[in-house]
Amino acid sequence: MQRIRLTLLFLATLVLGGVAASRAQQPARAEYPGIETGKMWTFDAPPLAYWAKRYDFHPTQTWLDHAMHSAARLPGCSASFVSPDGLVMSNHHCARGCIDAVGRPGEDLLTNGFYAASRAEERKCPGMYLDQLLQITDVTDSVNAAVPPGTPSGRAAKLRETEIGNLEQHCQADAADIRCQVVTMYAGGEYKLYRFHHYTDLRLVFAVESQTAFFGGDPDNFTYPRYDLDISIVRAYENDQPANTSADYFKWSQAGAKDSELVFVVGNPGSTGRLNTLAQLEYLRDIQYPASLTQLGNMIAVYQAQAAQSPERARALENTLFYLQNSYKAISGYQAGLLDSTLMARKRAWERSFRARVNANPRWRLRYGSAWQTSALDWQQLRALALRRRYYSFNAYGTTLLQEAGLIVRYPAQMAKPDSAREPIYRDAMKPRLERVLQAPVDTAAEIAMLGAYFTQMKKDLPATDPLLRRVLAGRAPDDAAREMVTSSEILSPAQRQALIEGGAAAIRASTDPFIELARYISPVEESLTRQATAINDREAQASALIARALLAVFGNTVAPDATFSLRISDGQVLGYPYNGTLAPPFTTFYGMYNRYYAFGASAASPWNLMPRWLQMRDSFNLATPLDAVSTNDIIGGNSGSPVINANGEIVGLIFDGNIEAQPLRFLFSEAVGRSVWVDSRGIIEALRHVYGAGALADEMTGR
Amino acid sequence: MQRIRLTLLFLATLVLGGVAASRAQQPARAEYPGIETGKMWTFDAPPLAYWAKRYDFHPTQTWLDHAMHSAARLPGCSASFVSPDGLVMSNHHCARGCIDAVGRPGEDLLTNGFYAASRAEERKCPGMYLDQLLQITDVTDSVNAAVPPGTPSGRAAKLRETEIGNLEQHCQADAADIRCQVVTMYAGGEYKLYRFHHYTDLRLVFAVESQTAFFGGDPDNFTYPRYDLDISIVRAYENDQPANTSADYFKWSQAGAKDSELVFVVGNPGSTGRLNTLAQLEYLRDIQYPASLTQLGNMIAVYQAQAAQSPERARALENTLFYLQNSYKAISGYQAGLLDSTLMARKRAWERSFRARVNANPRWRLRYGSAWQTSALDWQQLRALALRRRYYSFNAYGTTLLQEAGLIVRYPAQMAKPDSAREPIYRDAMKPRLERVLQAPVDTAAEIAMLGAYFTQMKKDLPATDPLLRRVLAGRAPDDAAREMVTSSEILSPAQRQALIEGGAAAIRASTDPFIELARYISPVEESLTRQATAINDREAQASALIARALLAVFGNTVAPDATFSLRISDGQVLGYPYNGTLAPPFTTFYGMYNRYYAFGASAASPWNLMPRWLQMRDSFNLATPLDAVSTNDIIGGNSGSPVINANGEIVGLIFDGNIEAQPLRFLFSEAVGRSVWVDSRGIIEALRHVYGAGALADEMTGR
Repeated sequence: MQRIRLTLLFLATLVLGGVAASRAQQPARAEYPGIETGKMWTFDAPPLAYWAKRYDFHPTQTWLDHAMHSAARLPGCSASFVSPDGLVMSNHHCARGCIDAVGRPGEDLLTNGFYAASRAEERKCPGMYLDQLLQITDVTDSVNAAVPPGTPSGRAAKLRETEIGNLEQHCQADAADIRCQVVTMYAGGEYKLYRFHHYTDLRLVFAVESQTAFFGGDPDNFTYPRYDLDISIVRAYENDQPANTSADYFKWSQAGAKDSELVFVVGNPGSTGRLNTLAQLEYLRDIQYPASLTQLGNMIAVYQAQAAQSPERARALENTLFYLQNSYKAISGYQAGLLDSTLMARKRAWERSFRARVNANPRWRLRYGSAWQTSALDWQQLRALALRRRYYSFNAYGTTLLQEAGLIVRYPAQMAKPDSAREPIYRDAMKPRLERVLQAPVDTAAEIAMLGAYFTQMKKDLPATDPLLRRVLAGRAPDDAAREMVTSSEILSPAQRQALIEGGAAAIRASTDPFIELARYISPVEESLTRQATAINDREAQASALIARALLAVFGNTVAPDATFSLRISDGQVLGYPYNGTLAPPFTTFYGMYNRYYAFGASAASPWNLMPRWLQMRDSFNLATPLDAVSTNDIIGGNSGSPVINANGEIVGLIFDGNIEAQPLRFLFSEAVGRSVWVDSRGIIEALRHVYGAGALADEMTGR
Repeated sequence: MQRIRLTLLFLATLVLGGVAASRAQQPARAEYPGIETGKMWTFDAPPLAYWAKRYDFHPTQTWLDHAMHSAARLPGCSASFVSPDGLVMSNHHCARGCIDAVGRPGEDLLTNGFYAASRAEERKCPGMYLDQLLQITDVTDSVNAAVPPGTPSGRAAKLRETEIGNLEQHCQADAADIRCQVVTMYAGGEYKLYRFHHYTDLRLVFAVESQTAFFGGDPDNFTYPRYDLDISIVRAYENDQPANTSADYFKWSQAGAKDSELVFVVGNPGSTGRLNTLAQLEYLRDIQYPASLTQLGNMIAVYQAQAAQSPERARALENTLFYLQNSYKAISGYQAGLLDSTLMARKRAWERSFRARVNANPRWRLRYGSAWQTSALDWQQLRALALRRRYYSFNAYGTTLLQEAGLIVRYPAQMAKPDSAREPIYRDAMKPRLERVLQAPVDTAAEIAMLGAYFTQMKKDLPATDPLLRRVLAGRAPDDAAREMVTSSEILSPAQRQALIEGGAAAIRASTDPFIELARYISPVEESLTRQATAINDREAQASALIARALLAVFGNTVAPDATFSLRISDGQVLGYPYNGTLAPPFTTFYGMYNRYYAFGASAASPWNLMPRWLQMRDSFNLATPLDAVSTNDIIGGNSGSPVINANGEIVGLIFDGNIEAQPLRFLFSEAVGRSVWVDSRGIIEALRHVYGAGALADEMTGR
């Protein structure tokens, strides 16, 4: 109820919508135009002027080198060295394969966790490797020199690939512990040779239970406040001895981070689209994402209705539903950014000023100036094709019969081509897969329900006079059409499908199966539309490349390139943010973990379940210890496991997620409400010492 | 990061956007058309058929009478009897005046709380009274009979008022402990005589510290998850003895409420606008609320800039900023509902079907049919006046000088009228007030800043050629205009204002003070616009009344009338809801309170501060006890302090707020995400016993 209260004003943190500015937060981004495309800086072009201006932070080359060398990359993840004896910290899921593999009979390490109390108990992770970046060399000139002037673009690409391969091999020489990779920046504006120390002997030291790492499950995924202790520890070995990383590891902060403190994330963000043109973003916003969300929503509704029929059905559909719901959540997040008129206005203004600078320089104008118009035309053409591409398709919300019919209808023409010219599914190497697909059984009731949903949406989207729609419905309601087609279909039976394949083109042409007839109708249109779309997408890729190189030409390295799955360093501050009509705090504590457990009924079936050790130890450790934290560092998928360090280069945290408001940052960078989410260093040590009995490990990490 | 997890599916609670339906929640509202306008049922027209159909709930008349008699009304609040000896439970702020008044020298009961360990220590609340509803009688015919057919509407209203007064006085007779009130339902479609037992001797028994009642302060206000223990207890006395309420009190539930359980709220919701026409809602959405939010935002920004200048300034502006920010939060909430196309589409469809039913009946059509068109015309006309009314005004974002000038400019003409014909501020009885206002000092810098913000917005909103704008700016930038006007104004000085008043119309006409000149220009236009708006609003009030009566005619009592500050009972279920990309749980626990305290830095200056007793007792009671809870009952301001009871009529909770998603429900009823927020009965008892040492009180409430 509305009440006026005489409480002390918490001005520094009370934010309403976009109205107030936090006193604790550094001034608005408008003062730092270089961060318009984000803050994922490369180590060979650190933004020293920007850091000095914004934070009065002046790192030495030693500081930067130390940060670079103490970070590490695991397959698909980031990590860091945290002791002189090769200890490596990352997320739980980054070591999942190892945890799963090293369990002995009777053990279930994913469920119950693992702790090697001595070096002898550390278990080797089969097939796991780790790369430590040693050096970055600019090889742009070498790569470009391999392409004589006037070489057509297709051949030029091959020549560059060859030269890149040569550079990498030469760099690696025959050293088993060296890996080299040429990273393409600015879509070929720059080429950088990254040289890594390659570790192949990694041994599992510690892992929490997966329920602890992923407390809150899929509901809490992508969100904050959060209560995950998402950590695993391995040790790098060389020559059967712990690797000597005494020169290259992050010390552990004694005090931990404070609200508003300057912190850095060192890791490997995978991919951003901040150079996407406004034309592309508008296409996503107006055409692609609404269609995806509609489709996902329809499919989720159908599956949920089926899952509600019985517990067995529910279990069988678990994974499918999670996948769809995760996609829905992520795309909703992206779309929220695209629907944010403030973010889009800022993008529009920046694109306009970027283009103006290109056009003001005759050389740039000549080389790059047409790229945006090309892009606008491309997306305009893709808009025109979108609706037809959506329905002249065999996918039909993942139903089986239309996909089968499509495979069958195209079979003769595909098999007539040489193997390398066929669609992948028809190639000789894929024969077992194709055969399995053609044998797939059909759950008739489920097929009817999903196909009905698909036809229902088709009827909403297409005009009543559309020939495809009229052919599909044939005067029937969508659900009736689905039911009649499925129940009367011959190709419900795998044997019948086989008969059509063997009967060849003549049999397929003669078939009166409703799905075969529909597929025959769809097929030529689908081929044509796909050809057109492919040509447009190829042209768009070239326009994108031009724009990336224009970025480099105009801004040099003062503007960070899009993420490239390679090592970046990102600045930020520990900071809460407005959420849910109130404030999300900069930290959470273990109290919050227990709150959510009990609030949802303390049920073992719940995503908020706690493992027995957490219930046994509940009253035996300091619940007020910070558990998770948020900051304004710029990260994205690939940064899982990244260390969070303070200005002294000490560990204050471990990245594992972003909040729901960070989703739009894929395309439109902003510091307003998107946050990196990490495990606080203090929570890690408190849990290791007092909940997991891993005091020796805690000592090694904290340097006792 | 995106991860597919093999966790057990929590289907019953996983909701994404509007896609999924909770298995635990009863089926969608479309099955219960009677609840389109909400669920605030009167006790003389309980929705028995609806309750039977939806919940298989069949309350006896005894059950209903008991609920009615065990509830109670405090000034501006709701309450309930919770023991046979007159114990009354309500929110903390409902007893605030008493808590403040009964403190003795050296005590600060608002800050530190209060507990009377024995009856003798209970302290009488001066001026506090409580009403217990005993009986409802239909007096519609009596009231209507007092108006002869053909009486003009103005006189008819007076005749009805007189008859209502007679009925109330006759009902009260001379009994000091009886109060009677005629409640108008459906804007005069029905009149109901409510007869109350009136208690005037209320004594304070228990109050938490205000920080405990309002933990989370203004940031957490209107939100959930929440951790407030918002409770006060008084005891009703008669003849110096505890009132005998053995027949009329709610027993305390032993087990407390469960997720999904059917619960009822009995209380006094103040005011809803669910019968507002779509035309009015669109006016609010398109014109009024955007203007209010813009104005509030501008004013907040100016005040915050001033508050940032010094801690003293910040303290002086506390209350002002809180008031503005609360208004901003509430209006943002209402507007969110009006911007929700699903909610508005549902309103549109319902209004259409309601009108269709009216038009299908010749008698109804004749009597009520024109009301919606009238309403549409009214709001269309108000739209046309809106912009001019906004700026032909003396308010100017609450600045002083233009308001003073307006008062002065109108003074001669007003004083020339008879006292009863003047604007209220000019009446003889208000003379001291007017004099105080005319003496008000002006903080020049603050005045310039706020007036500058006002002129800046004026410039954005009005076309450049607007005569008022041109007059105000006179070719200057808005901030310059403000500065020049203020620094050159004579009426900065109260003595100068007085001189103008004394100089009369001639002096005022001759004045060259920039604010007097502007006020002279504005005044006649403002008067004209106000006259026009008043006439339209009068017509709109009649249209609204017709629509309310049409509701009664068409639906009878199957549809609840808008709230009327009188006793209602509302059904609902304990239920979490989607929030923040994940789920808000049905309950919170004390663990969550400590989490928020530590997460925000455990600072005494923070809205999340905890009083010393909570830190001392932290490890001495069961933190897993439910603290707050949410349900789908339909409540609004006025319901503060209402009891939440289960189907057995036992206390399971105490209402104190709604979540942020409940704000739009003022106009557009929905069960999707809006929730009532209450203190859980178990949390109350746990705190009383183990944190407040109030075991005897807990025993009396739980009936030990």
